Parts: sequence; C-alpha cells; structure tokens
Amino acid sequence: MTSVTTLFSPVEEDLRVLTDNLKQLVGARHPILFAAAEHLFEAGGKRLRPAIVLLISRATMPNQEITPRHRRLAEITEMIHTASLVHDDVVDEAETRRSIPTVNTSFGNRVAVLAGDFLFAQSSWYLANLDSLEVVKLLSEVIMDLAEGEIRQGLSQFDPDLSIEAYLEKSYYKTASLIANSSKAAGVLSGVSAELADRLYLYGRHLGLAFQIVDDILDFTSSSETLGKPAVADLRQGHLTAPVLYALEEKPHLEVLISRELTEPEDFEKALALIEESRGIERSRELAAHHTELAVQQLVHLPACPHRDALTQLADYVLSRLY
Amino acid sequence: MTSVTTLFSPVEEDLRVLTDNLKQLVGARHPILFAAAEHLFEAGGKRLRPAIVLLISRATMPNQEITPRHRRLAEITEMIHTASLVHDDVVDEAETRRSIPTVNTSFGNRVAVLAGDFLFAQSSWYLANLDSLEVVKLLSEVIMDLAEGEIRQGLSQFDPDLSIEAYLEKSYYKTASLIANSSKAAGVLSGVSAELADRLYLYGRHLGLAFQIVDDILDFTSSSETLGKPAVADLRQGHLTAPVLYALEEKPHLEVLISRELTEPEDFEKALALIEESRGIERSRELAAHHTELAVQQLVHLPACPHRDALTQLADYVLSRLY
Repeated sequence: MTSVTTLFSPVEEDLRVLTDNLKQLVGARHPILFAAAEHLFEAGGKRLRPAIVLLISRATMPNQEITPRHRRLAEITEMIHTASLVHDDVVDEAETRRSIPTVNTSFGNRVAVLAGDFLFAQSSWYLANLDSLEVVKLLSEVIMDLAEGEIRQGLSQFDPDLSIEAYLEKSYYKTASLIANSSKAAGVLSGVSAELADRLYLYGRHLGLAFQIVDDILDFTSSSETLGKPAVADLRQGHLTAPVLYALEEKPHLEVLISRELTEPEDFEKALALIEESRGIERSRELAAHHTELAVQQLVHLPACPHRDALTQLADYVLSRLY
Repeated sequence: MTSVTTLFSPVEEDLRVLTDNLKQLVGARHPILFAAAEHLFEAGGKRLRPAIVLLISRATMPNQEITPRHRRLAEITEMIHTASLVHDDVVDEAETRRSIPTVNTSFGNRVAVLAGDFLFAQSSWYLANLDSLEVVKLLSEVIMDLAEGEIRQGLSQFDPDLSIEAYLEKSYYKTASLIANSSKAAGVLSGVSAELADRLYLYGRHLGLAFQIVDDILDFTSSSETLGKPAVADLRQGHLTAPVLYALEEKPHLEVLISRELTEPEDFEKALALIEESRGIERSRELAAHHTELAVQQLVHLPACPHRDALTQLADYVLSRLY
C-alpha cells in the first residue's frame, strides 16, 4: 500500500512551505491563536486538500512555475477546512480528533469559536485578495455548503428514512464541495478552458464523495486507535451513513432500533450485528469504488505528467484505506 | 429627542422590505434556523447599519431608484452584524441581549455556532454575487476585523495599561469597521468618485466610534432595564472602556483594584465610586462628540437631500442617547 506521503512527493516541498506559511499567517499576531494554530496545523493532518490543489496547479501549468496565487489558494483551502473542523468539534462536542484533544477540549469553546471565526474571516480576506471574482464565488459557495452540510447532518440524526441520495448530497456539502470547488479554482487560476475547469470540479466532487464514503466505512471497521476518535462514533450520534442506509434496506428490525434512537439496553450492539450481517459495508465499498472511477475518468483531459499520475493514484489510495 | 424611527423615515419602506427579506433568506430552508432568524431579526434591533447603507445609497443616487445590489448590500451588512452578535454571545456566555434571551440561551451553543456560521457563510456568498471585487474586499476586511476585535477584547481584559488609542482601535475593529466599510461600499455601488467613497468611509468610521463610546458610557449610566443587559457588564467582565481608562489617569487606586481583577470584597463598588468621582464619563462624552463632529464634516460632500439630513441627524441622535 502506497503511503500518502509517497503519493504527495511531487509537491512535498510545496506542502512544507504551506505548513510553515499557515502557522505564520494564523499564529503570528495572537498568542491565543498561536497555540491553537500549532495544535491545528501540526496535528498529523494529511494536507489532502492543499495537496490536490497543488497537484492540479502543477498539472495545469506544465511548462511554468506555479504562481503565488496557486499557493495562496492551497493555503485558503486548508484554512477553510480547518475552520470547519474546529466549529464542527464545538457543535458535536467532540473530545478528540486524530487521537489528540480538540481545540474545544484543550482551550475551551470560547477559543474554539474565535479561532474558527478568525480562520474563516482570514480565508475570506485572502480569497478576495486573489483578485478573481470567479474564484471568490467558487470558494464562498464552499463556505455556504459547509454550514449547510453541518445543519443537514444535525437535522437527519436517527432518521431511518434518509435516502442514499440525501446522504450523498449531505456528503457533498460537508466534504466534496471544498475539494471540487478548490480543484476547479486551481484550474481557473491557471487559465484552463471552461470545459477542463468543469472536469477538475468533477474530479474533486467524485474523489471527495469516495473519500467520505470510505471514512464512513472505516468508522465501522477500524478500532478507535486507528481512527483517532471513538469507534462507531457516527452511529452512536445518530449520523446514518452508507453502511447503515444499505443495511436498513435488508434488515427491517434495524429501523425499529434507530427510530427509538438506540435508547434501549443492547440496542447499539444489536444494530451493529444487523449491519455486519447485511451487505451494507460491501455495497458501500462498491459505491466508493464507483466514485473513484468517475474521478479518475476526468483526468484523461490533463496532460500526462507525474502530477496527473499522483492525482490518479490518490483515487486508488482512498480505496486502499479499506484494506 | 428625535426617535430613531423618525430619523429613518426616508428609508422606512426600504427597511420593512429588508426585514422581510432577511427572515426569508435566512429562515426559509431550515426549521432550526427559522426560529433563530425570527428571534434575531425581530428582536427590536434598530437596523442602524442597513439604515445607514440605504440612506447613503439614496443620497448617492439622487435622481435614480437605488438598485437591488444596494438593497442586497444593506441585507449583507445586517447579516454580518447579526452573525457576529450570535458568536460574541457564545464567546462571552451572554444570557440576554436587548432584554431577550440570546440564541445560545434559547437554543444552546450548538445552534448558536451553526446559526452564526450560516449567516457569515451566506453573507460571503451574497457578497461574491454582487459582482464587485472592490465591495468583496471592503466587506471581507470587516469580517476579519470583527474576529480581530473579539480576540483583542479577550486579550485586554483587566489590563489597566490599555491606552485610549488601543481602546479606539479595538472599537474600530468591533463596531466602526462594519459601518465604515459598508458606507463606502454603498457609494462604490453608486459609482461615486474615489474621494467621495473615502469621505463615506470616514463618516462611518467616526459615527461607529462615537456609537461605541456612547454605548460604553451607557453601560455605566443606564439601569439594566434600559440597556437590556446587566448594568456595568463591561467592567464586571474586565472590558475596560473610555470612562474607566480616563478615570485611571486620575485615580491611581483604581489601577490596584483592576489589576487584581476586582476580586476582593467591595472592589467592584469601590471601582465604580472612583470612576464616578473622576471626569471619566465627562471626558468620554467629549470624545464621542469629537467623533460625531468629524463624521458630520464628511457629509458636506454629499448633495443636499432628506437622506443627507437624516445622516446628519443620526450623528446627533447617537449623542442624544446620553441625555
């Protein structure tokens, strides 16, 4: 299994610069945020989103150096992602993420709300100063989608009537929108054709959906140590993901358990057993594989280069996390 | 004393449309936010910020109807203001605002963080869709300043070395930046000269500072019923405002009390007495009057019209709240 670090080797130096920049941009002025920034940008994040932006930037600028605007876009992408994580953890009262305490746990809700607001504000400001109205629109759509996704997630807790389509829509808002729109924005900054820009959007959209589906499967199949958060956390909180939704089609009793919000003794264990007996995990894997294929198909429109290869392998990597 | 409703009569109908639009824009899609939106946009707010935007819009479009973009800017201004109030109340753990329970009190921190994020996100999105990079820059600066102001306020709690200049800077970030930049943005949408746009910025800047200074004086001179929040809340929380900072210049013992964060018995009452004995309130009034004068001076560059008159009277109104 390829590691994500190997995959990102064509932009390894870019990612190192990015991490240093992010810590400086966010932490420089405020001691209160400095600690949070160190915490946030050192916390073993895979830098998946900025890596995709940087790989697309390089793949669409084949004979030239990427511009400072491409780098700034990658930074903005990671800032928006981090801001949304910080606020999600407040909203979900999460205690750990990637095995380390969340900002709300370490510094309290006060600092977590402020730090998230500051990151969102700073990303809006850097965005405006990229001087591209089209890029501003793409990324402000993302910020809207992230809020929408978090609200939908709250509204559909323990709702056994949630459809796979509604689940995918929610996953688009929460995960895929940022990857899709920032992938497209990287192309826009390189001056690609409208058609190629749309291909890049679709690459990000399908990759993001696959990534979320895989994450949701891992919530069932991984131990809490691997995941860095309590195992089967989604189901406990009533977030119904692909494995549960497919299992519901086969196991009518699961609906009974979920409708009563798993409140009776043993409900949680019974629900887990029903999901394991079903084809829920298997069908979820097929769904993720379907989206990675759709993602990879878009890449034939890019010139052959190590950066395009890395983008292809990234899709395989997303799936390989399941094995 | 003129009431603010009379003052805003030239844009009364515009404000009615704005309130309806805001409730629809924010509440339409989500029951969870609908309640919060009703709560937020009906809570007896004076609509000061959108009223200024609308008055400037009309004053700078003397022979034409204002455009939908002017109206949208007014809505965005109120959305940003409301979003920042909602998050400030989470951060400050405030229980009431304008005499009614805050969103965090009524609906919990979860909904309050989400509602604020959604409002910020929505305002960024509408902003991008005004299709003016200059306006996007002006208002994204505001969102950044609001976060900066809230952080600075947190950092300077109970700091008796806070200077009047640092207090005014913090007040600019927290209050005046939004009024200044949205005033300028209204002019930009009307296509005014760069010089007039800067005048409008200064009008908003000085009016905003005066408004904040007056608010800070009222925290000392009003009862909790008039204010809709506990009396002398700022001092209790260690937010040192103009009256305290001026009093500190006259009363050395006040510094002792504040440095120990008013923790000994009677410290709070003693501090209040020292402030009352000082010229703190009087000098703060002079400071506010100075800024309203500077605000009004900018308006001579606008054509004479009922909207300009209202903008002038608004400056008087801000001061009149003290009597």
